[in-house]
Amino acid sequence: MTRYKVILQYVGTRYAGWQIQKDQPTVQGQLRDALHKLTGEVVTVIGAGRTDSGVHAMEQVGHFTLSQETALEKLCRGLNGVLPWDIRVMQLDPAQPKFHAQKDALKKRYEYRIYNGPVLPPFLYGYVHHMTHPLNVQAMQEAAESLCQSHDFSGFAAASTKVKNPTRTVFLSRIQERGYHITYQVEGDGFLHHMVRNIVGTLLEIAVEKRPPTDILKILDSKDRRMAGPTAPAHGLYLMRVWY
Amino acid sequence: MTRYKVILQYVGTRYAGWQIQKDQPTVQGQLRDALHKLTGEVVTVIGAGRTDSGVHAMEQVGHFTLSQETALEKLCRGLNGVLPWDIRVMQLDPAQPKFHAQKDALKKRYEYRIYNGPVLPPFLYGYVHHMTHPLNVQAMQEAAESLCQSHDFSGFAAASTKVKNPTRTVFLSRIQERGYHITYQVEGDGFLHHMVRNIVGTLLEIAVEKRPPTDILKILDSKDRRMAGPTAPAHGLYLMRVWY
Repeated sequence: MTRYKVILQYVGTRYAGWQIQKDQPTVQGQLRDALHKLTGEVVTVIGAGRTDSGVHAMEQVGHFTLSQETALEKLCRGLNGVLPWDIRVMQLDPAQPKFHAQKDALKKRYEYRIYNGPVLPPFLYGYVHHMTHPLNVQAMQEAAESLCQSHDFSGFAAASTKVKNPTRTVFLSRIQERGYHITYQVEGDGFLHHMVRNIVGTLLEIAVEKRPPTDILKILDSKDRRMAGPTAPAHGLYLMRVWY
Repeated sequence: MTRYKVILQYVGTRYAGWQIQKDQPTVQGQLRDALHKLTGEVVTVIGAGRTDSGVHAMEQVGHFTLSQETALEKLCRGLNGVLPWDIRVMQLDPAQPKFHAQKDALKKRYEYRIYNGPVLPPFLYGYVHHMTHPLNVQAMQEAAESLCQSHDFSGFAAASTKVKNPTRTVFLSRIQERGYHITYQVEGDGFLHHMVRNIVGTLLEIAVEKRPPTDILKILDSKDRRMAGPTAPAHGLYLMRVWY
């Protein structure tokens, strides 16, 4: 039995998210099929985080176990040979037998990319969320910073979320602006379902001055999903990195 | 009668090039359809250069004439409203009645984008030419520089090219390297059909040390297309800018 750690990059557009679903193309499903084709084994790749439908990953981490040992280089090339173009194995390493991509993750970084120019350059289509309304970046920044601590994040979780402990620690929460590109970066020890996209939906309401930056703390205090803004579209979101 | 100058950006992937063709989607055809839908007039947009099938444009320039005057802002928004996502009007301006996007062009810049890493990041798929073989960038640079002057470029033109004067002046011809990204930039007063892609095909043979950098001058002297390397794939090529 050999355990492998895999670093994946994928364009989420064509997939119903990470997790295997019946009759829908998923990233995990494509990996299972590719591994089956190459090794004959039926293997599930466990991911660090279950990205939603349409969400991209610059660096998703997964683990899997094969009963037969295979040369790393050959397995890596083989996977990229059979996987579709929009899912790539960027790195493949042997891992400790107990390495667990999800449970061992200490920190994750997500990034949400917004394009705030009048016309969306076609090369960015599907890769950024296009907003033509002028955005108050200063207010976004202020609001973003107020998220940076340990909180009960229920107010920003999907209404259906049921977790024992909804407290998460956010280490970094900031806005970066370069020309028309506005990026929200967030690092935390974990994220509730839809948490980043609900934060961004709220930041965007703050950015168009529909509500004040201080609403962030009110939403956190309320623990009530109905207080936050709408869920921002999936195609602006990227899982950027996972730390172990 | 009002003449307009339009700056376009497009992803060439889905199109059989710029120029209208029967039964094939083209950029010029999409523009004609969009203008017809908006104004009721049947108008051909003349482009600065006819990009080939699959070639991209960061800044293609075109001109067209409408018999009815229309508010600029409204026309620009209207065009982006009816054009497909992969063709965008980035700028629209009134032009002198005699402005001609092709004949008045003084200089054009093309860029050819190569990715020389082991695994192609999926976000670059269709937007760069992927080469896994290690490239000798020094040799490419040397060869690229030797193109920088006035020449008879018949050796690099498509075999079918029939022009009265195959002499073109290249003002800039250089390689830039940033990590795995290798870019060839070329500026000239005009380009023969397939000229940039044939130059790149030859530079890539030099880069894999299949032939020496000095072959560039030999090919120019020969004026024989059969001396040059293969035509590099279309999806790495971008029309970057046109000067008037």
